[in-house]
Amino acid sequence: MDVHAAVSIADVRAAAARIAPFVHRTPVMTSRALDEWCGARVVLKCEHLQRAGAFKYRGATNAVQSLPDDVALRGVAAHSSGNHAAALALAASGRGVPAHIVMPRDAPSVKRAAVLAYGARVVECEPTEAARVATLRAVVAETGAVEIHPFDDDRVIAGAGTAALELLEQAPEVEAIVVPVGGGGLLSGTAVAAHGIGARIAVWGAEPAGADDAARSLTSGVLVPQHAPATICDGLRTSLAPRTYAMLREHGAGVTVVDDDATRDALRFVWERTKQLVEPSAAIAVAAVRANPALRGRRVGVIVTGGNVDFTNLRELWPSGGL
Amino acid sequence: MDVHAAVSIADVRAAAARIAPFVHRTPVMTSRALDEWCGARVVLKCEHLQRAGAFKYRGATNAVQSLPDDVALRGVAAHSSGNHAAALALAASGRGVPAHIVMPRDAPSVKRAAVLAYGARVVECEPTEAARVATLRAVVAETGAVEIHPFDDDRVIAGAGTAALELLEQAPEVEAIVVPVGGGGLLSGTAVAAHGIGARIAVWGAEPAGADDAARSLTSGVLVPQHAPATICDGLRTSLAPRTYAMLREHGAGVTVVDDDATRDALRFVWERTKQLVEPSAAIAVAAVRANPALRGRRVGVIVTGGNVDFTNLRELWPSGGL
Repeated sequence: MDVHAAVSIADVRAAAARIAPFVHRTPVMTSRALDEWCGARVVLKCEHLQRAGAFKYRGATNAVQSLPDDVALRGVAAHSSGNHAAALALAASGRGVPAHIVMPRDAPSVKRAAVLAYGARVVECEPTEAARVATLRAVVAETGAVEIHPFDDDRVIAGAGTAALELLEQAPEVEAIVVPVGGGGLLSGTAVAAHGIGARIAVWGAEPAGADDAARSLTSGVLVPQHAPATICDGLRTSLAPRTYAMLREHGAGVTVVDDDATRDALRFVWERTKQLVEPSAAIAVAAVRANPALRGRRVGVIVTGGNVDFTNLRELWPSGGL
Repeated sequence: MDVHAAVSIADVRAAAARIAPFVHRTPVMTSRALDEWCGARVVLKCEHLQRAGAFKYRGATNAVQSLPDDVALRGVAAHSSGNHAAALALAASGRGVPAHIVMPRDAPSVKRAAVLAYGARVVECEPTEAARVATLRAVVAETGAVEIHPFDDDRVIAGAGTAALELLEQAPEVEAIVVPVGGGGLLSGTAVAAHGIGARIAVWGAEPAGADDAARSLTSGVLVPQHAPATICDGLRTSLAPRTYAMLREHGAGVTVVDDDATRDALRFVWERTKQLVEPSAAIAVAAVRANPALRGRRVGVIVTGGNVDFTNLRELWPSGGL
């Protein structure tokens, strides 16, 4: 028995059918200027135009819609200061069940506002991992809600894989797919989808140098969690879980490590040339295409994972005050 | 003889056919969140995704492609620090003829780089209107190039009108169209196109409070140029020309005056909710829909004129350092 093959292409296809009534089939976009800049023929899969502004809505919706009625009625819960928070809130509202989102006190107010706007309950906690975990545990104990993890969950991974499934329908000529890697859920789901369609489609992760646990783990063959991540890619500070580590090993996913300056360059280029407001954690995948010699001249799909930029602190992104 | 009817719907249709091989047929976009925010059903015509990042490419291309061969060969010229500069440079390169662009020494370096990237010659001058005019005159005398004015030109106005023509093909249910107004070329061309298709389609301009010469002129019945314009809408600081003033009077175009704070609110809303990087001079039209009681509940087309944001100075846009 192969314990790693927990998510199959059939699961991804089933997820696609399950979430179809809820998600946007996001457009793909090309740009000659971008092709020149990257040295490859790039197809952008525009998940920043997904509902709630990120691909995360796919996995959250698949998880929520997969729950048996009696479980769903008790509601769902997660701790998140990022895109999973809004995605789960919106996914729960799509099924008409409660969502309880544990958010650190210092989460950007715009993220908090989005969760509230989708009708979820926000439970504040201290901004530490321990406090987040403990608060979530208390919320689950109190409400009976089921926790939906942002990536360490087969339903979430299968849902994330539907973005690549669509991309390969919209641009069947694609030879390689590049996606950002944080916890590895999207990269795992992408590998399952891509290899389920074409065994020779290369699958690459783009990982910040300041949070490069996936690269180190896959290279060393030992799962090494990230300590003290430091990157502008706020969505990619998490570490692989044993589940995603195993899936990425099984699928032979490559990882390109990108420093924040290269991500800033890609962010600025995408903003200026495509007029698409993608977030740093998405732009890193464009930077990775440009940096990866294996992709030179190839037809490359990039999943543009999200567009939730924190405008309240542009100075953190560009310390000079401008791009 | 009606001297004002210098541009007809037939001219706009001819322009559309003439420029079709060169321009993008830009998509339209809708957003439930935007509808709620504006209190209207809004269709965005995405000219920020036009080549050179602005609708200006339509008028410049129509003008350049309309020139007789012997005239075109001598090249084209303009003074501009904005979107017309890049648009004319790209339009000239599309016909394989030289372009000479007079730019003030303090023009954003990104705009200068775009003009150069399209193969045009940049002639620098002092940053005063007098120096720009004198330098352009010298360039024309030296090269024999023909000046293409950014809006005081029937061919440019007819080309600008093609955006509304497309919008009304893509969204025939639209009852009113709102566009930004600076020199009035787009508003004039839009009025010609809209009224050529449906006499009852309302046409509105959106004008910054700090450069409201169109509103004052059309209200008073006397063409009053703008002195010392002050607005973040850098594309809308110019005044109406007698040509555009006459066309707007003839078509009964309305003008909504919008202060910069309302434009900032619209800019932030559009960036956050649609993930489209539009420029302030485009976002003002969204602010105008929201502010105009006559549009409440109506189906409104908005021409999103451009996406060339000057990222080198975001602090000027948001003095607080964030949005």
